[in-house]
Amino acid sequence: MSAFDNLLAFQRQTEALSSVAERLAWDQETVMPRGAVEQRSEEMAAMEAVLHERRTDPRIGEWLDHAEPEDDEDARIIELIARDYRRASRIPARLATELARQTSLAQGIWADARAKDAPEDFLPVLNDILMLKREEAAALADGGDLYDALLDDYEPGTTQAEIAALFDAMRPRLVALREDVLGAEFQPEPLDGHFSQETQLRLARTCATAFGYDWTRGRMDIAVHPFSSGRWQDSRITTRVVETDPFNCLYSTIHEVGHSSYEQGIDSDHAFTPLGRGVSMGAHESQSRIYENQLGRSRAFTGWLYQRMSDAFGGLSVPDADAFYATANRVTPGFIRTEADEVQYNLHIMLRFDLERDLIAGRLDVENLVEAWNARFLKDFGVAVDRPANGVLQDVHWAVGLFGYFPTYALGNVYAGCLHSALRAAVPDLDEALARGEADPAVEWLRENVQRHGGLYPPRDLIERASGTDISEKPILDYLEEKFSAIYKL
Amino acid sequence: MSAFDNLLAFQRQTEALSSVAERLAWDQETVMPRGAVEQRSEEMAAMEAVLHERRTDPRIGEWLDHAEPEDDEDARIIELIARDYRRASRIPARLATELARQTSLAQGIWADARAKDAPEDFLPVLNDILMLKREEAAALADGGDLYDALLDDYEPGTTQAEIAALFDAMRPRLVALREDVLGAEFQPEPLDGHFSQETQLRLARTCATAFGYDWTRGRMDIAVHPFSSGRWQDSRITTRVVETDPFNCLYSTIHEVGHSSYEQGIDSDHAFTPLGRGVSMGAHESQSRIYENQLGRSRAFTGWLYQRMSDAFGGLSVPDADAFYATANRVTPGFIRTEADEVQYNLHIMLRFDLERDLIAGRLDVENLVEAWNARFLKDFGVAVDRPANGVLQDVHWAVGLFGYFPTYALGNVYAGCLHSALRAAVPDLDEALARGEADPAVEWLRENVQRHGGLYPPRDLIERASGTDISEKPILDYLEEKFSAIYKL
Repeated sequence: MSAFDNLLAFQRQTEALSSVAERLAWDQETVMPRGAVEQRSEEMAAMEAVLHERRTDPRIGEWLDHAEPEDDEDARIIELIARDYRRASRIPARLATELARQTSLAQGIWADARAKDAPEDFLPVLNDILMLKREEAAALADGGDLYDALLDDYEPGTTQAEIAALFDAMRPRLVALREDVLGAEFQPEPLDGHFSQETQLRLARTCATAFGYDWTRGRMDIAVHPFSSGRWQDSRITTRVVETDPFNCLYSTIHEVGHSSYEQGIDSDHAFTPLGRGVSMGAHESQSRIYENQLGRSRAFTGWLYQRMSDAFGGLSVPDADAFYATANRVTPGFIRTEADEVQYNLHIMLRFDLERDLIAGRLDVENLVEAWNARFLKDFGVAVDRPANGVLQDVHWAVGLFGYFPTYALGNVYAGCLHSALRAAVPDLDEALARGEADPAVEWLRENVQRHGGLYPPRDLIERASGTDISEKPILDYLEEKFSAIYKL
Repeated sequence: MSAFDNLLAFQRQTEALSSVAERLAWDQETVMPRGAVEQRSEEMAAMEAVLHERRTDPRIGEWLDHAEPEDDEDARIIELIARDYRRASRIPARLATELARQTSLAQGIWADARAKDAPEDFLPVLNDILMLKREEAAALADGGDLYDALLDDYEPGTTQAEIAALFDAMRPRLVALREDVLGAEFQPEPLDGHFSQETQLRLARTCATAFGYDWTRGRMDIAVHPFSSGRWQDSRITTRVVETDPFNCLYSTIHEVGHSSYEQGIDSDHAFTPLGRGVSMGAHESQSRIYENQLGRSRAFTGWLYQRMSDAFGGLSVPDADAFYATANRVTPGFIRTEADEVQYNLHIMLRFDLERDLIAGRLDVENLVEAWNARFLKDFGVAVDRPANGVLQDVHWAVGLFGYFPTYALGNVYAGCLHSALRAAVPDLDEALARGEADPAVEWLRENVQRHGGLYPPRDLIERASGTDISEKPILDYLEEKFSAIYKL
């Protein structure tokens, strides 16, 4: 066997094992008995130990030295394996273990602190994690920028300077739009009523099917925080149900279908290679966002959904499909990122991006974090945070060590904007299909131009190839201004 | 760290990983999307490769050479690790991985072939697996008997000669009882009616709770073939529902609760050591059988169940609890092992035991298996097999490589007979509790005398210590003759 074949065979098993670990995490969040926490942490730790040992196996280095690519695809595979090997090898096993242990502990402490609105219970642990992440970042950065080293794990090849420039360009138009919309005379009605779990889940399945979710290679379960999990032939979604707010369930479902369809849509040739996964968190989020927002919250699709929901729930509190469209896109002041509308969502991300850059750089101490969060929220949103659970304690990300992850959400929106422009140009009669509850033409275009490639192209290349233009904030901002000006009759 | 501590720490991780592999197998049988077969077989193979590498790690040999036990428990742990190490080291990694992959794939092929009544679709795959198993047996046997080498995996320390002698001793009395019962003037009525899935599952949960199943460390799902899965804090059961036959669901459930309670009942000190699992398949089956039959199908417990079922289904086709007891123990000609009554069950096992011994010894080819099965069935049961799904295709065992496993079912019955004798002597008023739907006194006795020990004693020792007598077929045969003579008014 050639060095490249050895590399590929070894990687194949590592990919399969990491897929097993992901399935185990799914199990924990959906079906695991509540008394199994201790056993499961032992099982997860054992899987992590095996994976870390494989990712830093010195044979990878030897094979990489001798691997000869036959084409661009081989070259990209080598590049991705080399990248993972380099990163994994820079992190001492002790640090990896300590991070795994601390973040698994911190998750429970965070949840309790949030429930009790007691940041003082969580901040010391967060500080420990921050110190470990800074140590990890220093090991990865090898003299370079700490935050960039972390960001690179989620959005390879992107720097905080690029993100900051992008966000600076977005902010003024988003802030202006937000002010116009919140100050508009016309305000959409909320959706009132009680919506049974059973019917919501049935509709969620209908929506997932409308967006091309392949049920033979997936399934849907309930989780506290919706997520998608798994690849290729086994990519599962989860959703949640709030009986006073059916949009929560339906749009969470469509969002996760976007993530899951990306994995289902990758060419099966790439399975169990480093090309067999979504290429970055930003690229992933571009799919979930375009499914959820540009398609799912479009006038055309909400028209179909209005009829389906009216039938299923025996009438709705809004009078017609136009009013329903406005309701599904309602912009209201709120503290919580995951409940934010398309206009305000990116402002939530910018707040976190700036704070976590300061934390990683050592410009902000954890002990001053609550104050910093609240001051920034007041400045950006004009409202004082009423309690920590609605402020710094709302997200799990930092508790589990995800620093550098937040900006990929906004990047996903920017990518989705670029893709949506190109999609609309390529499929001019898309709205006719969406109005019939059929997202197929859009899904096919995304599959062909984005999803099937998996990890073949770096994220920016992938989006630029698909959209035929350079990455820019203009399409998403134009889209938002046009859409919300119309809805709010500005 | 001492050699023994090293051994224990290493084993701890191996046990955790093997628990992960078991959870993955559970997933495959209960919730996995049907299109994920190929991916899953790759994942299972990767896990098997990791496990095999660990089980044959040369460091184990070194630690074993220097490990010094401080007490009998340490000595038993060393004995079990040494046994696994010796066995695993004899199997080439290629063979272990290939078996994992083939058997994971064969499961789906078997299920399709059974559904289509098409043995020709399955037999070629079965032949591949048989060849791999013979190769494995030869590697394990190291010059000894092939079948014994496989049997030893499921019932350590037992030989086919011992089993054959036991079965020879059982056969005449079983055959005579079967003939008397089938020819008796009195024949119990069948249970007629339609029994909704929802109500059956609710009753199944009630029964599981009555038998002490700990729901905080387990769950119940539906599977084609009911099974139990997992250990300690995460031991799950499965059941199935036939809407014309509620006994199928209820007694499958109680049976699996027996298996699962054994795992839940092992001292938590033994978790993640080789003592933290049921000691053999025969010992395991003794628990499931005694829960299902000696307790669950007793006059006392069926009296309680009659009332519960009458209430739940709004009346039953049988007039009273006595008639219901006979119905729940009805002996009728039938093709299917898993639906067989207590009298005929062991005859089904003997058929499989003889056929699989011939297959492994090379005295019978897979291409002649259908014919051999049908001829033997006609001889033993006096009825011609009507279709392959009722014959050779009915069991999944051979498809997943379980050769040498079947006899442990009958051994479990023999063990259950011994334990039941001792239990009745120790808890003379057991029937009073069972008549109230409370199995606690029996469960507590089994937990104290069998379950909590896990792997601490070899299987025969365990059963002999608990029952206070040598292993013998006499108690189970006496019990069967007494019970069925009374029911059938012989």
